[in-house]
Amino acid sequence: MSKKMTIDGNTAAAHIAYAFSDVAAIYPITPSSTMAEVADEWVSAGRKNIFGQEVKIAEMQSEGGAAGAVHGSLVAGALTTTFTASQGLLLMIPNMYKIAGELLPGVFHVTARSLAAHALSIFGDHSDVMSVRQTGFTMLSSSSVQEVMDLAAVAHLSSIKGSLPVLHFFDGFRTSHELQKIDTIDYEDLAKLVDMEAITRFRERALNPEHPHQKGTAQNPDIYFQGREAANEYYNKFPEIVQHYMDEIGNLTGRHYHLFDYVGAPDAERVIILMGSGAETVEETAEYLNKKGEKVGLLKVRLFRPFATEKFLEALPKTVKKVTVLDRTKEPGAIGDPLYTDVVSAFGENGKTIEVVGGRYGLGSKEFTPSMVKAVYDNMSVKAPKNHFTVGIVDDVTNSSLEIPEHIDAASEGTIRCKFYGLGSDGTVGANKNSIKIIGDHTDMYVQGYFAYDSKKSGGFTVSHLRFGKTPIKSTYLIDVADFIACHNPSYVTRYDVADGIKEGGVFLLNSPWTLEDMERELPAEMKRIIAKKKVRFYNIDAIEIAKKVGMGNRINTIMLSAFFKLAEVIPVDDAIKYMKAAAKKSYEKKGEAIVQNNYKAIDAGVDGLVQIKYPESWATTTEGAEPLSVTDDKYFNSFVKPILAQRGDKIPVSMMSKDGSVPTGTTKYEKRGIAVEIPEWNPDTCIQCNQCSLVCPHAAIRPVILTAEEAANMPETFKTAEAKGKEFAGMRFRMQVSPLDCTGCKNCADVCPSK
Amino acid sequence: MSKKMTIDGNTAAAHIAYAFSDVAAIYPITPSSTMAEVADEWVSAGRKNIFGQEVKIAEMQSEGGAAGAVHGSLVAGALTTTFTASQGLLLMIPNMYKIAGELLPGVFHVTARSLAAHALSIFGDHSDVMSVRQTGFTMLSSSSVQEVMDLAAVAHLSSIKGSLPVLHFFDGFRTSHELQKIDTIDYEDLAKLVDMEAITRFRERALNPEHPHQKGTAQNPDIYFQGREAANEYYNKFPEIVQHYMDEIGNLTGRHYHLFDYVGAPDAERVIILMGSGAETVEETAEYLNKKGEKVGLLKVRLFRPFATEKFLEALPKTVKKVTVLDRTKEPGAIGDPLYTDVVSAFGENGKTIEVVGGRYGLGSKEFTPSMVKAVYDNMSVKAPKNHFTVGIVDDVTNSSLEIPEHIDAASEGTIRCKFYGLGSDGTVGANKNSIKIIGDHTDMYVQGYFAYDSKKSGGFTVSHLRFGKTPIKSTYLIDVADFIACHNPSYVTRYDVADGIKEGGVFLLNSPWTLEDMERELPAEMKRIIAKKKVRFYNIDAIEIAKKVGMGNRINTIMLSAFFKLAEVIPVDDAIKYMKAAAKKSYEKKGEAIVQNNYKAIDAGVDGLVQIKYPESWATTTEGAEPLSVTDDKYFNSFVKPILAQRGDKIPVSMMSKDGSVPTGTTKYEKRGIAVEIPEWNPDTCIQCNQCSLVCPHAAIRPVILTAEEAANMPETFKTAEAKGKEFAGMRFRMQVSPLDCTGCKNCADVCPSK
Repeated sequence: MSKKMTIDGNTAAAHIAYAFSDVAAIYPITPSSTMAEVADEWVSAGRKNIFGQEVKIAEMQSEGGAAGAVHGSLVAGALTTTFTASQGLLLMIPNMYKIAGELLPGVFHVTARSLAAHALSIFGDHSDVMSVRQTGFTMLSSSSVQEVMDLAAVAHLSSIKGSLPVLHFFDGFRTSHELQKIDTIDYEDLAKLVDMEAITRFRERALNPEHPHQKGTAQNPDIYFQGREAANEYYNKFPEIVQHYMDEIGNLTGRHYHLFDYVGAPDAERVIILMGSGAETVEETAEYLNKKGEKVGLLKVRLFRPFATEKFLEALPKTVKKVTVLDRTKEPGAIGDPLYTDVVSAFGENGKTIEVVGGRYGLGSKEFTPSMVKAVYDNMSVKAPKNHFTVGIVDDVTNSSLEIPEHIDAASEGTIRCKFYGLGSDGTVGANKNSIKIIGDHTDMYVQGYFAYDSKKSGGFTVSHLRFGKTPIKSTYLIDVADFIACHNPSYVTRYDVADGIKEGGVFLLNSPWTLEDMERELPAEMKRIIAKKKVRFYNIDAIEIAKKVGMGNRINTIMLSAFFKLAEVIPVDDAIKYMKAAAKKSYEKKGEAIVQNNYKAIDAGVDGLVQIKYPESWATTTEGAEPLSVTDDKYFNSFVKPILAQRGDKIPVSMMSKDGSVPTGTTKYEKRGIAVEIPEWNPDTCIQCNQCSLVCPHAAIRPVILTAEEAANMPETFKTAEAKGKEFAGMRFRMQVSPLDCTGCKNCADVCPSK
Repeated sequence: MSKKMTIDGNTAAAHIAYAFSDVAAIYPITPSSTMAEVADEWVSAGRKNIFGQEVKIAEMQSEGGAAGAVHGSLVAGALTTTFTASQGLLLMIPNMYKIAGELLPGVFHVTARSLAAHALSIFGDHSDVMSVRQTGFTMLSSSSVQEVMDLAAVAHLSSIKGSLPVLHFFDGFRTSHELQKIDTIDYEDLAKLVDMEAITRFRERALNPEHPHQKGTAQNPDIYFQGREAANEYYNKFPEIVQHYMDEIGNLTGRHYHLFDYVGAPDAERVIILMGSGAETVEETAEYLNKKGEKVGLLKVRLFRPFATEKFLEALPKTVKKVTVLDRTKEPGAIGDPLYTDVVSAFGENGKTIEVVGGRYGLGSKEFTPSMVKAVYDNMSVKAPKNHFTVGIVDDVTNSSLEIPEHIDAASEGTIRCKFYGLGSDGTVGANKNSIKIIGDHTDMYVQGYFAYDSKKSGGFTVSHLRFGKTPIKSTYLIDVADFIACHNPSYVTRYDVADGIKEGGVFLLNSPWTLEDMERELPAEMKRIIAKKKVRFYNIDAIEIAKKVGMGNRINTIMLSAFFKLAEVIPVDDAIKYMKAAAKKSYEKKGEAIVQNNYKAIDAGVDGLVQIKYPESWATTTEGAEPLSVTDDKYFNSFVKPILAQRGDKIPVSMMSKDGSVPTGTTKYEKRGIAVEIPEWNPDTCIQCNQCSLVCPHAAIRPVILTAEEAANMPETFKTAEAKGKEFAGMRFRMQVSPLDCTGCKNCADVCPSK
């Protein structure tokens, strides 16, 4: 029995890992942590694995310890898994050689992530998994949340039967954190596929005082080499075992996989070869291009180690003339990146004269879009294709990058794309996750949710990217063309290009206290021009005011969610309201009827409070409007930090980057975020000058000031002060100065004030 | 000013590392430890680096800590080095990404070593260095002790000028521990080559509160990729910088190096490509084969990263048709091992249709001999050469191994090869090191010394391999054809094939108390046949007896050394005696004239005490002689452990190996080494039955026994016992039982005996 669920890749992997494991030895690292967290929750809830037992989860002191515990647990005969990424995986390398050398069936689920080099990145690429490809682990790659579910099962089943460890990986954040509606696989079905005899053999060779043997001996030059070759057969047989279980999973689910899967024109001359989530985008683009009459294709590498050369060659169409291998990692100084050299070697040692070039994309979760894919295909059409290129950046130093002359919209027709600008911890992301679940659970539509954060977390910047469609959604990139955009914070209009990428006739929803008249002043000219030129249906809602009124404090997420349902028309609004209210009841019933009623009111108000803005046609050409604040003439800040803060960092060329990762200090002071929804107002009449408000402010945005008599004499009339208390300040004036642009509106100051 | 010194690779590397370093952050691991040890000694002795300062050496808590300290030290603007290998290098991986990413000029000197997989090995291969090839470190390989001296300098100089870290590696044990007479490079000469401006730039970008900046930031998807490409130019320029310093070192020393050095027939059709000490053996063999009319060659890879494809292609002769790439590492599941895929890629992306195969050799210091090299060249001559082969083992499971049908002797003519069988800590190795230094220092001969140990250290088994010649010695393998063999321990004759490999008319020297008559009984038939068939000049010396007489206790090494000089005739024996006496005087003068005189006596006695054994011609066909002891009918011990103990482990085929490294327990009990030169004799008359001898025996080779009256009644007449002391043993007999074959002759029992 399989059922549809809207989950992320981490949960999909954990679902399978839990099924097959006796033990999980873990240490949390982004973006893998969720796998361990949900597994831990399942243990608490008494969930059983396919052997009818709870999984024993052991959190260690580091990934080095986790890998040691995995090794020890496997040696003791327990089926063992772990979840990790990036530097965490690096710390596991010594134990990985041991686990592979001792033919132990452990499975590592890895959310592939960058490694810290010139700078750290918590985001996704294949640098970590490629750094362990020499350890003897077999490696299986999943490209989407559904594949994570299916191939994680193949990983565990094959590992048990083939007696080799498997590193199952999928792209950090893009796949690990992307919500998709997928088919899950039931534990009862999985249990039937396990090779129980292989498990018995595994348990029999565990270290056991009843029938002792020793492992981990030291071997001298006379026999070490022979010992290292003694396991060859296990590797030779493994591809067949993996295909066997791909077939079994195919029979069970109808989703068929192969060690290498070709997609595209059967008579393609140009083919891209790659692994991971990028394959989804390439597939989407290839379909788009083939519909336009091109003949292109792609080969998805699933079993990367052992690399089954024969199957690889068989999988390619006979018509192929040119191949581009895309690697999502960089190995400075290497002749080529790893998948590239594998492919060149596979062709070379089999006498194939297919022309191969290699390129690098998507490092640190750099966007990889259909337009970039097209550039890669186009590169193969020129007489001397660029080799060892980069795509997705502008490399104006060593000129490695491909140009992206054309923007294409390759998404399947009928996909609805919605983008939401929110403030970290304002509830926008949570509300969007709810809307995805509501739509996913109550319709037969496919859904996808991806949530982009800056690194400030609470109080930072979030963009939610939601897609809904009748066919599976393969757009593994941020929304570049949007049917609907919501901006949940009015201060964003001068800070980010919030209207950028909206479709002709799309809907733009703003949360602000502004009338059309206010907007003439508050909105930047560029935004007005986009809205008018694209004939955008522009709505405003004063969600802050409404939230206060209906007793929701400043939590606007429920209001914005119902406004979205009303405007985006993904499902009938009445149904949406019904589902939202049912969900609110379920969530808040325990907290009392009043809270439930407040939520109901907020849901209704989100629909009722919408105001369509009848902007004048003149907006299409206006040059008047709000200007973004300029706070400093610091050259580094203005040329480098400011574009990044405005979400235009993708456009920064290589020449502007520090070569060794060093950067100036103290530039945060120029970053005036102005994110406070409400800011404190100082009352000179009641203030007792205790300064506690200044003490508790986490951002030092409130500071007490003393004015000498002389200074006080020269102060402007509007500058409010009070007589300074205390002997030492006799004759001086006091003021509590608030910095509105640094304030985050957390209210700590107001809470602590003894005289409020 | 350069001078000749007889040193090992570790000392050569340390000589250079010390010159260029402000700081060395270390953690000792075999076989790299010597580098840190000698550097530490030099600090104690007040030696200065080229900047006129002592090196600051910091020993950390692990290699992880050492790498962190190296990173921190470099960031602080100190030129920093470290020495490591194997698992130690694995623990440095996370920091290596950082050091490379931040363009820091650190140099790691690595004695390339195996990694623990199915079993641990402390011996040499390239598994460790290949596991870090993706980190962004540049990598430079040295093949011999002389190259370590020269290319270590290139490594430091290039690192400073090019602002990239360098991993300089050479083969563990083979190069790190091989003694060779080489030219050293003087610090004054090195100092002139340093790019001081580059050092100034390096120090200027160090973290410094006077002009602060920050490093190690976190970058998001918008800019991480651009930042990762910003350092490309450093890698692009690096090969040229390395060649520049190779040229500078060449101008200074007359020894010229290139990124890739081709050696062999200028019109070769078959070429081997490899790195490390194996290149010496291939060079020796190629010369030998070319002299016989073949046209073969080899390409030595020196700069492995960045891989300079153009220079690589230029270095190969235009006539090449077939290439074999030899990798000294195994990456299970990979399409090919790393140097192989590099070469295939280099050819592939440049449209070269040269046929390439790859092979694996020398894992865990497995022997790599001219006969094996010939098999590799022969493999290229067949129509369909075997690819992904192994050489040096018999793989009778997956049939990967090349057959070695023919044994060839490729060493330069005139090389004198001497082999010494000794007991760990009996002074044999020390004496051989002295003889090498005596010959190296007082003649213009080239010398090479390599010392093979089992893993028992003190009381274990040692074989010293010494070569002397008029031309540089490139035989980087154990001596297979010997002019001279000395067996310092009589018990070895039935345990090892000590006479194996002796040359027609060679000299065999045995230390034993035996007459010819005794030898008829004590020597195995096989040994007699070899001695007689090869017309070996066979000498005996009763060194134990002589040592006692001249007051040297049981230290036979001085006696055996002068016997060697007398018989081997590497230098005139009178000169040798003179040098030995001078050395003894220098060493022991402080301990008093008596000790010096004893040494003089021992030196003279070694010459005078030699007895030539006039064995009968009948030995050539005899089948009579001593039989090796059979102590158990345990099948595993007899078929697997026993050949290993007899030094025949090299011949064990893959099919006999455990696939996952697990082995039976408790087999040490069958290993009867019989290595004691003297064993304790129990005296029932004086024994007070305190059992202290039994208590102190480190090998439990002395155990007290009580016999009941009944048992005592049945004991053989020769079975000596004493009346058991103590009430509870009334009427019983006591015996202290010695196990002669387990005794190591350490004398602890005799020392502790209160009634002796």
